[in-house]
Amino acid sequence: MQDSVHVGLPGREYDILIGPGLLAEAGKHLSPHLRRPKVAIVTDERVAAAHLATLEAALEAEGITHAALALPAGEATKGWTQFSRTVEWLLEQKIERGDLVVAFGGGVIGDLAGFAAAVVRRGVRFAQIPTTLLAQVDSSVGGKTGINTAQGKNLVGAFHQPVLVLADTSLLDTLPPRDFLAGYGEVVKYGLLGDAAFFDWLEVNGPKAAAGDMAARVHAVTRSCQMKAEIVMRDETEQGDRALLNLGHTFCHALEAATGYSDRLLHGEGVAIGCALAFETSARLGLCSQEDPSRVRSHLKAMGMKTDLADIPGDLPDAAALLELMGQDKKVVDGTLRFIMARGIGAAFVTSDVPRDVVLSVLGDGLVGR
Amino acid sequence: MQDSVHVGLPGREYDILIGPGLLAEAGKHLSPHLRRPKVAIVTDERVAAAHLATLEAALEAEGITHAALALPAGEATKGWTQFSRTVEWLLEQKIERGDLVVAFGGGVIGDLAGFAAAVVRRGVRFAQIPTTLLAQVDSSVGGKTGINTAQGKNLVGAFHQPVLVLADTSLLDTLPPRDFLAGYGEVVKYGLLGDAAFFDWLEVNGPKAAAGDMAARVHAVTRSCQMKAEIVMRDETEQGDRALLNLGHTFCHALEAATGYSDRLLHGEGVAIGCALAFETSARLGLCSQEDPSRVRSHLKAMGMKTDLADIPGDLPDAAALLELMGQDKKVVDGTLRFIMARGIGAAFVTSDVPRDVVLSVLGDGLVGR
Repeated sequence: MQDSVHVGLPGREYDILIGPGLLAEAGKHLSPHLRRPKVAIVTDERVAAAHLATLEAALEAEGITHAALALPAGEATKGWTQFSRTVEWLLEQKIERGDLVVAFGGGVIGDLAGFAAAVVRRGVRFAQIPTTLLAQVDSSVGGKTGINTAQGKNLVGAFHQPVLVLADTSLLDTLPPRDFLAGYGEVVKYGLLGDAAFFDWLEVNGPKAAAGDMAARVHAVTRSCQMKAEIVMRDETEQGDRALLNLGHTFCHALEAATGYSDRLLHGEGVAIGCALAFETSARLGLCSQEDPSRVRSHLKAMGMKTDLADIPGDLPDAAALLELMGQDKKVVDGTLRFIMARGIGAAFVTSDVPRDVVLSVLGDGLVGR
Repeated sequence: MQDSVHVGLPGREYDILIGPGLLAEAGKHLSPHLRRPKVAIVTDERVAAAHLATLEAALEAEGITHAALALPAGEATKGWTQFSRTVEWLLEQKIERGDLVVAFGGGVIGDLAGFAAAVVRRGVRFAQIPTTLLAQVDSSVGGKTGINTAQGKNLVGAFHQPVLVLADTSLLDTLPPRDFLAGYGEVVKYGLLGDAAFFDWLEVNGPKAAAGDMAARVHAVTRSCQMKAEIVMRDETEQGDRALLNLGHTFCHALEAATGYSDRLLHGEGVAIGCALAFETSARLGLCSQEDPSRVRSHLKAMGMKTDLADIPGDLPDAAALLELMGQDKKVVDGTLRFIMARGIGAAFVTSDVPRDVVLSVLGDGLVGR
């Protein structure tokens, strides 16, 4: 049931292996990438408690020595304090340019450890072993690494590609359902932005994947990684097409900022709501049919996911304040806000030509529903 | 009297302009690189007091708006605290990917501001206006950026090439003589590592450059930049030839560590002593003639520079401890110490084949001279 995706970036190519049981085989897969049998693992306390012993046994089976740093779990870890701690820990492990850092956890760990690897000795190699659906389909692929600061999320970081990604889909069995569905928000995004047939498949098979069907999970992760890899290969440093991956994200970032990046709204939940808002905006602009946003919303609802602004608990600022927060996004170019709009399901495109009042009305109507 | 060096890295090529009066023309030279007329200047308090008004006037003459952050002067600035402060300041200035950061100062500012530019929004462009001889001939060229940590110097950073370097040689007039001579240590290094004719020229013209002869200064800076650029083009990320630039540096780093990176020994002073030690070691290994280290030392002495371990004030650890400190250098590969040795003046090469006891005897003899 194993599958793989090749990311063919010239000079920095790598494979994503996808399937159940990969963690227990990690030593075998990492070995060909090691110049000496030594790795430094960066993980979080929650992942370490559940899975570190499995990884360590897999490394020992291949004679690979290892050290591990377990950071506190949660988004708050992804800042200067734990970043500089991780960088200095890697230096203390005497990690050299030929060595390998293993990022073992969700998106927070992958982003932080990848950024640390990017700057230790001006760049050491790293591998990703993503443990959440969100990380398997999004953050572990494509080489974006970084941390958050007081000014916003992911505003500081580096493009640094891993040498290998091991996406063990059996790890998803231990993921809380809410986290699985949050990751699924990014899976749906891929169908919506560029593959209508994949969205059709998700309408049928998404519920099976959520219920634990391993074949459905492997396919959902594989197709997501394929789509992300194709886009990253076209545009590694986000000069153009890569922006398509931000479908739903400009809305999402505003909602995350408005909810204080708390567990009131997980990133993937914000992406799902953001996709619904992007399709609603596209329909109002006459770019796609009115059926499209309805179909998006009904699939999200069928999955039991947050779909509308009304599904976010607690207070939200008004439409004008949300629009202001959207302007803080780092994809702003020359002060102009860029949007990812859609001409239909599977047909997203980048535009700066979205009237402010249309966005305000979409947000305003959503807030009225609360 | 202006000269220039082109650094032809594919996709990241840039020019180094060298000559007196470039600071007052900075606006004109920066303008073609701006997508909008706005720059963020990172400098230190000492440089700001002496030269910021000139830079600001030059920018205003071209209608370029500017903001400036003046950090404390000195090597202690080059750490996490001022680095994260600078990164956040750049974010607060709403610096975007198309904007330009101007690193205006010596090596500390160039390395720190360049690294900050490398990670803000995963990379914004930057220009260097180096104000010391050391920065003009070394740190501003080649794209190495970084900061120091408790584990050592420059162990954290990025390769990030500037879009332009303006080396205003008239700024050297206000440099204290000791700082000029420290920078001259790197100038001599270029002759020693790869251009015997340049070393011949320096034996005649070095004293004139030190005395203020502008034509001699422009040529010394230009030839140094040319040599560095050629080596960087062959080997940007230091897989091979770039290591030649570290002639004298493995010794130097040990001496800097032993003196606590204080003003007991400036970096360029350590490089000069390190070059003399590297030639002495080469001669003892029979790689070059015994006349070569003598000639190196006599030029350094003629310039009034520190030449031997005996010239370092205060206590030093013994030879074994210095050798141990050399092993902390980041150019260590698989635990093996690499040295830059020489087959003669202008003929350096990289080798791991230097017996420990020969290095110990060179260091021991040098310490006896104290």
